[in-house]
Amino acid sequence: MHFTLLFGGVSFEHEISIVTAITLKKLLEQEHTLEFIFLDGNREFYLIEADSMKSSYFAKQKYKKNKKLALSQDGFSYKTLFSQQKISEGVLLNLIHGGDGEDGKLASLFDFFGLDYVGPRLEASVVSFNKLYTKTYAKSLGVDVLDYEVITPKIDPTFEYPFIIKPLRLGSSIGIAIAKEPKDLEYAKDSAFEYDIEAIVEPFIQGVREFNLAGCMVEDEFIYSIVEEPTKEEFLDFNKKYLDFSRTEEVQKADISDELESKMREIFAKIYNPIFRGSLIRCDFFYVDGKLYLNEINPIPGSMANYLFDDFNAIIQKLAHNLPKQHQIDVSYNYIDSIQRAKGK
Amino acid sequence: MHFTLLFGGVSFEHEISIVTAITLKKLLEQEHTLEFIFLDGNREFYLIEADSMKSSYFAKQKYKKNKKLALSQDGFSYKTLFSQQKISEGVLLNLIHGGDGEDGKLASLFDFFGLDYVGPRLEASVVSFNKLYTKTYAKSLGVDVLDYEVITPKIDPTFEYPFIIKPLRLGSSIGIAIAKEPKDLEYAKDSAFEYDIEAIVEPFIQGVREFNLAGCMVEDEFIYSIVEEPTKEEFLDFNKKYLDFSRTEEVQKADISDELESKMREIFAKIYNPIFRGSLIRCDFFYVDGKLYLNEINPIPGSMANYLFDDFNAIIQKLAHNLPKQHQIDVSYNYIDSIQRAKGK
Repeated sequence: MHFTLLFGGVSFEHEISIVTAITLKKLLEQEHTLEFIFLDGNREFYLIEADSMKSSYFAKQKYKKNKKLALSQDGFSYKTLFSQQKISEGVLLNLIHGGDGEDGKLASLFDFFGLDYVGPRLEASVVSFNKLYTKTYAKSLGVDVLDYEVITPKIDPTFEYPFIIKPLRLGSSIGIAIAKEPKDLEYAKDSAFEYDIEAIVEPFIQGVREFNLAGCMVEDEFIYSIVEEPTKEEFLDFNKKYLDFSRTEEVQKADISDELESKMREIFAKIYNPIFRGSLIRCDFFYVDGKLYLNEINPIPGSMANYLFDDFNAIIQKLAHNLPKQHQIDVSYNYIDSIQRAKGK
Repeated sequence: MHFTLLFGGVSFEHEISIVTAITLKKLLEQEHTLEFIFLDGNREFYLIEADSMKSSYFAKQKYKKNKKLALSQDGFSYKTLFSQQKISEGVLLNLIHGGDGEDGKLASLFDFFGLDYVGPRLEASVVSFNKLYTKTYAKSLGVDVLDYEVITPKIDPTFEYPFIIKPLRLGSSIGIAIAKEPKDLEYAKDSAFEYDIEAIVEPFIQGVREFNLAGCMVEDEFIYSIVEEPTKEEFLDFNKKYLDFSRTEEVQKADISDELESKMREIFAKIYNPIFRGSLIRCDFFYVDGKLYLNEINPIPGSMANYLFDDFNAIIQKLAHNLPKQHQIDVSYNYIDSIQRAKGK
């Protein structure tokens, strides 16, 4: 199968996306034909050779010598002396974590320009990127979430300590801080408001168990990963969490009952269908007093959570063959005449 | 001031958008410099001359002789013999009702390519386009909405008759039908599911009063329109409603108490701020037993609801001078080295 790995993006996780792309290249190149498109910090697309897929190539800005790509209804193309040369892109894999990739901008571009892609669609992106929308979306489906309140810089949380403050709109651990007592509040607010104009506050539960479950839907059937119980620190900070992004080794299955695993799958299915069709997502759960709470939805998890699956290559191929279609809208000109006639013009 | 009117789009309201653009041309051309960009049914952008701004020009496909525009980080441009010629676009006015314009695709494109525009941003688009998200968004702000349930083709509503079925995702009256008794159900479902795979059901309240209030925010101050009580039919169907789109004559202010008007403004402000900044929207309310319910949010109302304002030209200019800025994200390469080092590569 032919895939185009798209990575980079104007995002606080720009570098992590590069790591994900390098990791997936190694995983996919034996079974699939691959192309590589890099989106740089100025939102220019570049065509990258397979041999150049090394982190220093981007960090040292060597990519700038490469062909710049334009996007149109013909797909991606580069300029030759007299024309635009279309590149032979396969199905795009959207590997851009955070801004651009997970906030809905690229989904919109792909839908607008008619490109096939694996990744969250527009609504799915907005629902998972904004932590308030994730909460209200989950609640509307009867899925439990931790209590929360939204604050702005001028508003203080009303929750009892300890609580955790997160920027409302980043899909990662960036800017997250715990306030254990009043003296921590200013720092916690500062760190969240460096990244967004709104923040979400949740109770901080010491030693809470966390579980991650990834999966996707192919022809009305769900494919689930194993459930992972990530190593616990107080919470995973950016450095720690994103070492994960280059992971390929398989992880230990969490030691949980079949009943709990079924319950998690049931919640995953509610969250996923239909808006996350076309993407491979990871749902992160809290487990408190025998009850599951949805923590967050990662619509483009680090290295696509490949390490949670037995046969990642086969799954990604199946998913790429089962992408949702856009609703067909044919433009017609039936009303215009009657409207203009009614106006006497 | 310099504005570029963008209209058309792959939308069931494509024609209506043309009517809005023609209407706004007449309103704005005396005080502002205008350009015109048409997005056709194949999602190609065309530069249109002022003299060609007549509905038959589009219905008869004469626009196809015009310059096709490409979109890049340099903005809109057309091809000349040896290069791309940038057009001198002003602030874009997004006048594309429904798909593309109101669903978040064009907001994404404008943000991605760094264009200034008046119109709903990405999140605001998704929240107003999807009627379920409008409900959950309103509820999360403490704003009342009518009861609802979401159905798919295989599911029947559990509500008592009469109820109204609407496609979940269209921003207009298209596909909406009332089921007064069981025999109406199949037709009502058919008409909704012609346009979407999900539909929303609400109780149908005979003779309910409706009020519309438009407005926008400029430098932390709200500018509100007069409140209109639209003419009541059972409900306004597509033909009837969209004659409105070419309206310029002022309407009669609704005969309501100051208290009710204040209450409406209060709800409007909650809904608007901050996600609708940069747009002029219209909130439509139901008024039942002394209580206001948000019905829908129109982030690009027909002819921009100009007829509800005293000095539309001045308002649109103020709004264009107060567009929200995108959060600045500088891409850096600090983590990559440490991550790669940790992996020993």
